[in-house]
Amino acid sequence: MIFKGKEFGVGSKVKVKTFSDETTGTLIESYDPGIVLVKLESGYNIGIDRDNIVEIKVLEKPLKQQKDEKEFELSHKKPVIDIIMTGGTISSSLDVKTGGVKWLTSPSELFKFYPEIFELADIRIINPFMKFSEDMIPEDWQKIAKHVVKSLNDEQVKGVIVTHGTDTLHYTGAALSFMIENLNKPVVLTYSQRSSDRGSSDAELNLYCAAKAALSDIAEVMLVGHANSDDEYCFALQGTKVRKMHSSRRDTFRPINTQPIAKIYRDKIEVLKEYNKRKSGKEKAILENYFEPNIALIKFYPGQDPEILEYYFKQGYKGVIIEMTGLGQVLSEGNRNWVPVIKKLVDKGFIICAASQTIYGTLNPLVYSSGRDLVKAGVIYLKDMLSETAYVKLGWTIGKLEEEKIKITKEAVEKLMLKNISKEFNDRLGEGFI
Amino acid sequence: MIFKGKEFGVGSKVKVKTFSDETTGTLIESYDPGIVLVKLESGYNIGIDRDNIVEIKVLEKPLKQQKDEKEFELSHKKPVIDIIMTGGTISSSLDVKTGGVKWLTSPSELFKFYPEIFELADIRIINPFMKFSEDMIPEDWQKIAKHVVKSLNDEQVKGVIVTHGTDTLHYTGAALSFMIENLNKPVVLTYSQRSSDRGSSDAELNLYCAAKAALSDIAEVMLVGHANSDDEYCFALQGTKVRKMHSSRRDTFRPINTQPIAKIYRDKIEVLKEYNKRKSGKEKAILENYFEPNIALIKFYPGQDPEILEYYFKQGYKGVIIEMTGLGQVLSEGNRNWVPVIKKLVDKGFIICAASQTIYGTLNPLVYSSGRDLVKAGVIYLKDMLSETAYVKLGWTIGKLEEEKIKITKEAVEKLMLKNISKEFNDRLGEGFI
Repeated sequence: MIFKGKEFGVGSKVKVKTFSDETTGTLIESYDPGIVLVKLESGYNIGIDRDNIVEIKVLEKPLKQQKDEKEFELSHKKPVIDIIMTGGTISSSLDVKTGGVKWLTSPSELFKFYPEIFELADIRIINPFMKFSEDMIPEDWQKIAKHVVKSLNDEQVKGVIVTHGTDTLHYTGAALSFMIENLNKPVVLTYSQRSSDRGSSDAELNLYCAAKAALSDIAEVMLVGHANSDDEYCFALQGTKVRKMHSSRRDTFRPINTQPIAKIYRDKIEVLKEYNKRKSGKEKAILENYFEPNIALIKFYPGQDPEILEYYFKQGYKGVIIEMTGLGQVLSEGNRNWVPVIKKLVDKGFIICAASQTIYGTLNPLVYSSGRDLVKAGVIYLKDMLSETAYVKLGWTIGKLEEEKIKITKEAVEKLMLKNISKEFNDRLGEGFI
Repeated sequence: MIFKGKEFGVGSKVKVKTFSDETTGTLIESYDPGIVLVKLESGYNIGIDRDNIVEIKVLEKPLKQQKDEKEFELSHKKPVIDIIMTGGTISSSLDVKTGGVKWLTSPSELFKFYPEIFELADIRIINPFMKFSEDMIPEDWQKIAKHVVKSLNDEQVKGVIVTHGTDTLHYTGAALSFMIENLNKPVVLTYSQRSSDRGSSDAELNLYCAAKAALSDIAEVMLVGHANSDDEYCFALQGTKVRKMHSSRRDTFRPINTQPIAKIYRDKIEVLKEYNKRKSGKEKAILENYFEPNIALIKFYPGQDPEILEYYFKQGYKGVIIEMTGLGQVLSEGNRNWVPVIKKLVDKGFIICAASQTIYGTLNPLVYSSGRDLVKAGVIYLKDMLSETAYVKLGWTIGKLEEEKIKITKEAVEKLMLKNISKEFNDRLGEGFI
């Protein structure tokens, strides 16, 4: 192997010649000493076996070669993006020594994998904790919201990115949507399905597009990630109307009952629906990170015993979201009839809301008599709100009422649950595509 | 209004002239005396205000005008289809006197709305009960299976149709897939999203295509219904890999992690994947309608207390399906860690299986350490099986083992749960489209 060019390192633009091929791209950190990892223009990473390499030629020196923490101080020439790292696959790489996961928590580690975003902005990293997202609990949403609001109200910050595992990212998207009032700047959640050190990682495009979104004028809580299996552009999706719909695909997050806010390309943003604009001047975001944890989500299934409702009530739970079938039905005849159990518990002050297990489409309890009976029994029907969003909103709503010392009644909860706070309802009911 | 042609009635081909327009189609029963209901060639129904009608001209007399029950005896010239009517919107029409629902339960009532299928086959109606599908319980699946097997083993029957409400139709599809062994003829489940007496009903195309499927050589349990919003063709979907994905769209049923078996047009069937062929001769279908009702389906949500598992165990439940996040994860740290609770209960003989709440894609517990811990704790991972199918299969599996006096152990259940009995697993893992 011949090395032309005196030095090469992470961030260098290189041309790698093998016996059969030639590859041009940016050199990124490889944890496998036998592999040279090159990020292509397309965003894909390619791993090249060192034994096959004939020559590596450095075309351009790295922007900032092997910077240490001190050198990552703000340049004051670029806009500032705060990245709140909370864990997940996007923040992980394989620790070749232990075989376990190694978290990326510093700007210099991030720079090894994503040198490009450092050209767009000065990056500050906030790291409240590191978790895989199945381990996130509502208290974590409250912590993240607090950090986001702090960054939003820092005048030098242009936008905020939250990196997060995919499994429950849509819950966190909903939580931030409700927990931040008077949103003044973009709040972008992003992720990857494959870790940053894997050749086929989707992290780079997602993070790059997240940075573009964070610098845009879209003052919404949005999820930014691959729109399809290509590496061409990302979707920016409304935090309250999005769901993880595939266990492994890079375009796993799909908009539900609404359009994406925008398509985000490397060089442009194509807006697809109306959004709230960035606020100028001194308008501050307000933290409203309430959450009553004693609530539950129940997916109804055929023949299910309504006793499950009694169980939660006896455990001191304040309310539940029931994922009902179709337009909003549950078993309403025979010896497992849910209607009288629901009526009894609602009369005792238990809050019972309905969302649909079809995911797409809206509830309509008035079409069938069983639905009308459930309305009479006191069920709050949440139109086309996703059940996951409904779970988050119910915890937030009851938490907010408790904070404001308002009695938890069906009427008080219903008023807030049916108020369209962060586009969790679609104005054009019944819309939605599969 | 002038009536040319001596008689006209349900089933007549008519030309209806209004002051502004002219419509040709088949007259069908209208429950609104002010409206004349005409089915167009396209399959759509159109309601015409009687006050606007200038003339109704009968082009062709009805095939069988106002037949009474006696006349619906078998012609012995056409193939026989048994229709097992179980209720749902497809079997309902508005009772204008009471404002409630009126069930269609006889061939003559069916003929009023669907004269076309009587040209394809001799229709026999079996009517074990009438329900909306949210009220279906596992005992109902057992009853339906019994009737289906009886029809399948009747030599003069070419195929079986089950009409059913949409809300839990995919559960019944899975139940029949497991409860009938050695399937020898087509078993077709069909439905409608709008009742038969509504102008925009989707029932006619669905029922017509269901009849085409019942006469075909596809010996599978399949759901047949609109493939899209047009009235051009239906999909035939595998009973174990289908889900209601929209609360109101006519193409609500979507294939999950697989292709449709076929596209069914009015005049042809286009096969899309391999299927089991109709059996010739004396091979009989075998009824295996076991079901252990003491099982549950739990959808995991962030921060959920694993105490719910203890609750079901204490109630005498034999096992549960947990809808986990992503590749198969649950909360596995802190004071609500699910792993030790799962381990404790599995050690006591409780069966715990995992399906994914992403719906699309397959589980893979080996990617992350938390998944590996859950495997060690004794969770049975069900690959790409739908959670709804998994719930049905778990009840069936435990019921079958009980029937055969085999001890309910993790090993015995796992062996059957992971055996691909009715294409509930996809051989090419990770396939699937959104």
